[in-house]
Amino acid sequence: MNKNNFSLTPPMGWNSYDYYDTAVNEEQVKANADYMAANLKEYGWEYVVVDIQWYALDAGTQRDRYQYIPFWEVAMDEYSRLVPCTDRFPSAKDGQGFKPLADYIHSLGLKFGIHIMRGIPRAAAHEHRKVFGSDATANEIADPSSICFWNPDMYGLRADREESQAYYNSLFELYAQWGVDFVKCDDICRYDMPSAKKEIEMLHHAILACKRPIVLSLSPGPALINEAWHYEKYANMWRITDDFWDSWPLLKNMFERCELWQNHVSEGCYPDCDMLPLGYVGKGFGEERYTGFTKEEQVTMMTLWCMFRSPLMLGAELTKLDEWTKGLLTNKDVLRLLTHSIGAKQMYRDSKKAAWLSRDTEENAWYLALFNLEDTEGIIEFKETELEESIFKGKAYEELWTGETIRAADNNFSVRIAAHGAKLYKVIE
Amino acid sequence: MNKNNFSLTPPMGWNSYDYYDTAVNEEQVKANADYMAANLKEYGWEYVVVDIQWYALDAGTQRDRYQYIPFWEVAMDEYSRLVPCTDRFPSAKDGQGFKPLADYIHSLGLKFGIHIMRGIPRAAAHEHRKVFGSDATANEIADPSSICFWNPDMYGLRADREESQAYYNSLFELYAQWGVDFVKCDDICRYDMPSAKKEIEMLHHAILACKRPIVLSLSPGPALINEAWHYEKYANMWRITDDFWDSWPLLKNMFERCELWQNHVSEGCYPDCDMLPLGYVGKGFGEERYTGFTKEEQVTMMTLWCMFRSPLMLGAELTKLDEWTKGLLTNKDVLRLLTHSIGAKQMYRDSKKAAWLSRDTEENAWYLALFNLEDTEGIIEFKETELEESIFKGKAYEELWTGETIRAADNNFSVRIAAHGAKLYKVIE
Amino acid sequence: MNKNNFSLTPPMGWNSYDYYDTAVNEEQVKANADYMAANLKEYGWEYVVVDIQWYALDAGTQRDRYQYIPFWEVAMDEYSRLVPCTDRFPSAKDGQGFKPLADYIHSLGLKFGIHIMRGIPRAAAHEHRKVFGSDATANEIADPSSICFWNPDMYGLRADREESQAYYNSLFELYAQWGVDFVKCDDICRYDMPSAKKEIEMLHHAILACKRPIVLSLSPGPALINEAWHYEKYANMWRITDDFWDSWPLLKNMFERCELWQNHVSEGCYPDCDMLPLGYVGKGFGEERYTGFTKEEQVTMMTLWCMFRSPLMLGAELTKLDEWTKGLLTNKDVLRLLTHSIGAKQMYRDSKKAAWLSRDTEENAWYLALFNLEDTEGIIEFKETELEESIFKGKAYEELWTGETIRAADNNFSVRIAAHGAKLYKVIE
Amino acid sequence: MNKNNFSLTPPMGWNSYDYYDTAVNEEQVKANADYMAANLKEYGWEYVVVDIQWYALDAGTQRDRYQYIPFWEVAMDEYSRLVPCTDRFPSAKDGQGFKPLADYIHSLGLKFGIHIMRGIPRAAAHEHRKVFGSDATANEIADPSSICFWNPDMYGLRADREESQAYYNSLFELYAQWGVDFVKCDDICRYDMPSAKKEIEMLHHAILACKRPIVLSLSPGPALINEAWHYEKYANMWRITDDFWDSWPLLKNMFERCELWQNHVSEGCYPDCDMLPLGYVGKGFGEERYTGFTKEEQVTMMTLWCMFRSPLMLGAELTKLDEWTKGLLTNKDVLRLLTHSIGAKQMYRDSKKAAWLSRDTEENAWYLALFNLEDTEGIIEFKETELEESIFKGKAYEELWTGETIRAADNNFSVRIAAHGAKLYKVIE
Repeated sequence: MNKNNFSLTPPMGWNSYDYYDTAVNEEQVKANADYMAANLKEYGWEYVVVDIQWYALDAGTQRDRYQYIPFWEVAMDEYSRLVPCTDRFPSAKDGQGFKPLADYIHSLGLKFGIHIMRGIPRAAAHEHRKVFGSDATANEIADPSSICFWNPDMYGLRADREESQAYYNSLFELYAQWGVDFVKCDDICRYDMPSAKKEIEMLHHAILACKRPIVLSLSPGPALINEAWHYEKYANMWRITDDFWDSWPLLKNMFERCELWQNHVSEGCYPDCDMLPLGYVGKGFGEERYTGFTKEEQVTMMTLWCMFRSPLMLGAELTKLDEWTKGLLTNKDVLRLLTHSIGAKQMYRDSKKAAWLSRDTEENAWYLALFNLEDTEGIIEFKETELEESIFKGKAYEELWTGETIRAADNNFSVRIAAHGAKLYKVIE
Repeated sequence: MNKNNFSLTPPMGWNSYDYYDTAVNEEQVKANADYMAANLKEYGWEYVVVDIQWYALDAGTQRDRYQYIPFWEVAMDEYSRLVPCTDRFPSAKDGQGFKPLADYIHSLGLKFGIHIMRGIPRAAAHEHRKVFGSDATANEIADPSSICFWNPDMYGLRADREESQAYYNSLFELYAQWGVDFVKCDDICRYDMPSAKKEIEMLHHAILACKRPIVLSLSPGPALINEAWHYEKYANMWRITDDFWDSWPLLKNMFERCELWQNHVSEGCYPDCDMLPLGYVGKGFGEERYTGFTKEEQVTMMTLWCMFRSPLMLGAELTKLDEWTKGLLTNKDVLRLLTHSIGAKQMYRDSKKAAWLSRDTEENAWYLALFNLEDTEGIIEFKETELEESIFKGKAYEELWTGETIRAADNNFSVRIAAHGAKLYKVIE
Repeated sequence: MNKNNFSLTPPMGWNSYDYYDTAVNEEQVKANADYMAANLKEYGWEYVVVDIQWYALDAGTQRDRYQYIPFWEVAMDEYSRLVPCTDRFPSAKDGQGFKPLADYIHSLGLKFGIHIMRGIPRAAAHEHRKVFGSDATANEIADPSSICFWNPDMYGLRADREESQAYYNSLFELYAQWGVDFVKCDDICRYDMPSAKKEIEMLHHAILACKRPIVLSLSPGPALINEAWHYEKYANMWRITDDFWDSWPLLKNMFERCELWQNHVSEGCYPDCDMLPLGYVGKGFGEERYTGFTKEEQVTMMTLWCMFRSPLMLGAELTKLDEWTKGLLTNKDVLRLLTHSIGAKQMYRDSKKAAWLSRDTEENAWYLALFNLEDTEGIIEFKETELEESIFKGKAYEELWTGETIRAADNNFSVRIAAHGAKLYKVIE
Repeated sequence: MNKNNFSLTPPMGWNSYDYYDTAVNEEQVKANADYMAANLKEYGWEYVVVDIQWYALDAGTQRDRYQYIPFWEVAMDEYSRLVPCTDRFPSAKDGQGFKPLADYIHSLGLKFGIHIMRGIPRAAAHEHRKVFGSDATANEIADPSSICFWNPDMYGLRADREESQAYYNSLFELYAQWGVDFVKCDDICRYDMPSAKKEIEMLHHAILACKRPIVLSLSPGPALINEAWHYEKYANMWRITDDFWDSWPLLKNMFERCELWQNHVSEGCYPDCDMLPLGYVGKGFGEERYTGFTKEEQVTMMTLWCMFRSPLMLGAELTKLDEWTKGLLTNKDVLRLLTHSIGAKQMYRDSKKAAWLSRDTEENAWYLALFNLEDTEGIIEFKETELEESIFKGKAYEELWTGETIRAADNNFSVRIAAHGAKLYKVIE
């Protein structure tokens, strides 16, 4: 089983975090899935992912003091494995876990994903719970000095104990039974925690052992560029940024990150720019809000993510999606880049502008994206003396967001772009 | 109450760690106290300190795998306060805690000390135990991301919750009831954990609140020189090194540390060079051994510690003390430096040699220590053109370890010293 | 010769830099010296220091592009030693160097100081000039990789060549001939250039060799606290800050630096808070301006410098000194702290306030300084439960800037202080 | 002009450094070129590169004290441009520079390269020499604080002065006149000098301006992975290591570096593993020696360099090449990887072993390299469950160094390899 075959193009889907934080429930997940099946599936959107703390009782009820209530009750089976709490996920009753929900998602022709934290529940370690398929108990494989600095739920696993692999195997065996297609593992991929390499390998081996092609996504980022080979070997996607939100400085900063990681996108290997905070977001964090991005910034974000071929995960509450946003997410010409663009390269970048170029895999075409990074409208020049002249000379090129078509005499031309905006051209040879 | 009056000279005593590791019991503590009272008390030795994990059941029983068994049972009262476990400290039965043992130590004319870890027991947080004198429960004041990296017992306290002070107050109220004279708080003073500043302050305030002059000692070190003012303000002693053992490289390195901290020794403020690994040590760590230091190195260590005025804490099992070691610890002329030397300064230091100079506070005398840091016997020169000539010119100076007396024509002279050895002179004006 | 006897109290004087930058001339130096002799000498002010680039032709003439014109002509003798350029220092003609000017300063009962850069002129190395008292030539002792990052004049000396010491000896022999009393050596003391330790030692040995008690001052700072012993052994003063100017954030930051270095002030050893940017400053930097400090900030600065016992070096153009500023510099009760205060300690400090306490060396008195670090007037409390009660109980204490006297019932009292202001009390027991 | 077309495959050639250090002369360069033309050219070897200090008089004559004699005479034209010194390069007389030597190399059907240091000669700055094509003089564009830490010859150029570009343009105009095909620029690409980015861009623009397709090679390394895009945009090759020599730890370490950079090899962009210290090397450094690598290590080095597609630059004195070494350098099946292997990936690596896999660009074949990194002979397993089964199943695969052919039942097989040795297989589908 080759993990690079689990997702031949960047995964597209929805994730509960940006809107619901820790507090999403089954009904809400289903409603978003229903919307996706009805409105987005045909454009390639397929994953429905339940994010953090589906196992945590009372999650979200002390939001003024804690994002994650420490030392609180979690739903767990006798083998130290977290299970959905039934107050929010009623179908998980009688030990059914996420199987009923996954079945429902699958019935819509979609795929089902969950978020997990690296390690084993702290509560399991303190209670000396069992580990499925092993004589060890949780206290023997939990590493008391390996914790997450922002979430209190887990202990990392001891890399020097082979029973640790048994525990991860037992997790994925359960997830395979449930029908999970996608696992986003958190607290495992970040510049200041290189020791998680061993746990990434254990996750990978557990996936191979469970025989189900579960896509493995690593968080929270930013990932380490000097461990790129390791991610490519053992995972399908890894965050190249800490949590991304609807703020221009974060979006502008993503150009630097994409520059850094552009050579590391390949089949089954996707550096991840994080969720798209579009439409309505933020309810679980205290107050629902419409995305703070301007329309131009949204176009810039979608253009960069597609050019770079990042996974696309929607943060929006889908049932509230407006027409504008829906249009942004259903532009087939743009989304085609995720599946048919290759060799995307940044051509230039400074504090004011950036340009990217790629090839279509099937058609004799180029894609060219131009970005205005300044706070005012401006003329963006494309002036690449080093390109073969034949690329643009006299060709018609079509802007994929607007349908406008222009012609260039050669590789040097310029175009007016709104503040923080972008143009995405397709040039047919 | 001025904390600088709690110990007007550097504390001298015995600590259970170097010999017993985590596993010392009441009988052993008493035997060492008896020896001290009978043989060392008259020389100034007075503290008897029970080191780490006196509250931990089965401590030391899984020594092949763990120094500290993680997620194991600890003895604790209803208010989240650790108490001595009665299998090793039988007199602690019926909630008496360390009071009976402290009473016994006091009856010998000695003082009693204990080791604690910064924070609140992890078990208390997970069990939501009460906090004495507060409505908060342990889970509310424990910081789930504040842990010790080498010991699994505690969570640090939230600096932003005032109930944290209540918890520390409740601890010292209990210790005052027991009759504790000295607290060595661990995991609180180290270059890579500056955030413990707030917890040091809380400890200090808890001591003032309990009205008992409990000496506060901070570990593990190395302390941060740029936080020196903070230690001097809130504590009585702080380790300037990580754990010190009987190894020449560690001893040689201490010269650099003493150079760094020499200006920070004052009444009630003692940078701490750590325990003296003399005589028999190491039993609890797996194998009892006689100190690995040569006799010359032992002389060097005692000379440096006394010249620098470090606290002196014996690591040796006192009941097995040999005559040589006992002689080292009962040289009144040398120990006088702890109480009557002032203004000690390093005169020079390089990789081969070092010299220190100080004044006697009562007599018209100087102390001069010369060290041979090389691996072979050699001639150590003292050549200080900058000193007032009158110091050594024609004076008799007595070597305090051997009683030898020599005379110097001026400030320049030289003496033969064994490899890793030292000479400690007293010069009467 | 003991370097600690060269200046038994913190040096007080005037330095040309803050007003003239690189471009001061002989006449201006004399005018400032005249003023000092007539108006300030009786208060202890005595050093007149010519700062950077007295050897540089055309210094200051390309101020729009360079502070220090690179690769430009410097005045130098045949032995690679920089000498004053005669266009600005006419009395230096005929190889007389600074002797005539020094003689003049001495005739006023004052002392004369100069600034130098660590090392040997780059020009001397490229021209293979001679070194006095050595067969080596400049190119052999100059280290081509040891440069100053902000001044282009010099190469550092090779620490591994003994001829380097010969060069420094030749410098100080010349300075002794001139009658120099004070040398401020730059580019030698800073956290990011630890390798200068060896050059500090060479300077010290050169001073001993020249037999003249030349005070050695090290710049630019911030000095390294972990090399404190080294500075105390080899120098008289060392900057604990980078260049200090008339800006409140810099002044507020000095409280942190004084906290750090407070234990390192002793006879002949003075951590240095840098020049006092009072009165008129800045002319050589492009535009003369009256200090940007408010009167309250000036009081705070003077109070902190005196309490800490920093050297006091005036940056003001003395001939333009106004009455207010002159009053600030001639308050004998305040300046007494430089000569008769001892053991100054910070009592507390946070972002809003600070307090320092010291003893008078002769009188039975205490000094207490209170600072309001906030941007608004406020009540500053002094509440030291740890002090012996007898200090303040019922005593009269006099504010040394205003002469106001108040009485306190005990160690707890409070006082109203202006924004960024200070009160300095003397308490007679 | 597209710089990626300057060298469509990794450059292969000879460099004077490993054997001659700074002291190579014209006759020696010609002798090596002659050998190359006669014996190696047909295998793809074509560049002849004169390394560092061809402009430095007396280079190498004070080798006991200096590698580079500081502040010594250099050959320079009136425009601050270094030229070959005629004692070692007689044909450079009458201002002909390297043109005669380049012509000779070209006459052999080979290409000619030179080494330069970033910046402008220090001597030119101190002498205020002219800059061709600009009114500025050297002292105006030289940055006095931008130096090389291991070579004393140059100052970096001011990035904020446009005349700096004029200087670089004048250099490459001259090099184009001479007929230079390859420039190795030193002191410009290293993890601790990020500020050189601007100078890399200036070099690139100077090459475009001179209209000659001069390959640009950056040293000394290690290059910064987070500036990979910048190197790929502006240079042809960049060192991923500091100087590489014939030492097993350095060779073993190269596996880590190749892992890091494997995604950054493309047409015109070659991460560079540095020169091959084979045959006789070291004469200029003090003593000629035969490479310290075992034959197995030499095979490992050649296999890794070819698999990774590093440039191949011979350090050996070619006129002394033995048959074994010559065999190593003329194995067409192995060298084919430089021109016809693509997509090379590390399959696994730990402290004991490594494996790489790539495709042939024309034939339906795979290349598989297996390495034994241990100090003893051992069995190296290849066990890639994730590869498509069809790759190895039942195929014949030929070891390209020995010609041995074996067959594998599937993707799992193992082979015995000598200590530090390698096997390089070609598998025909």
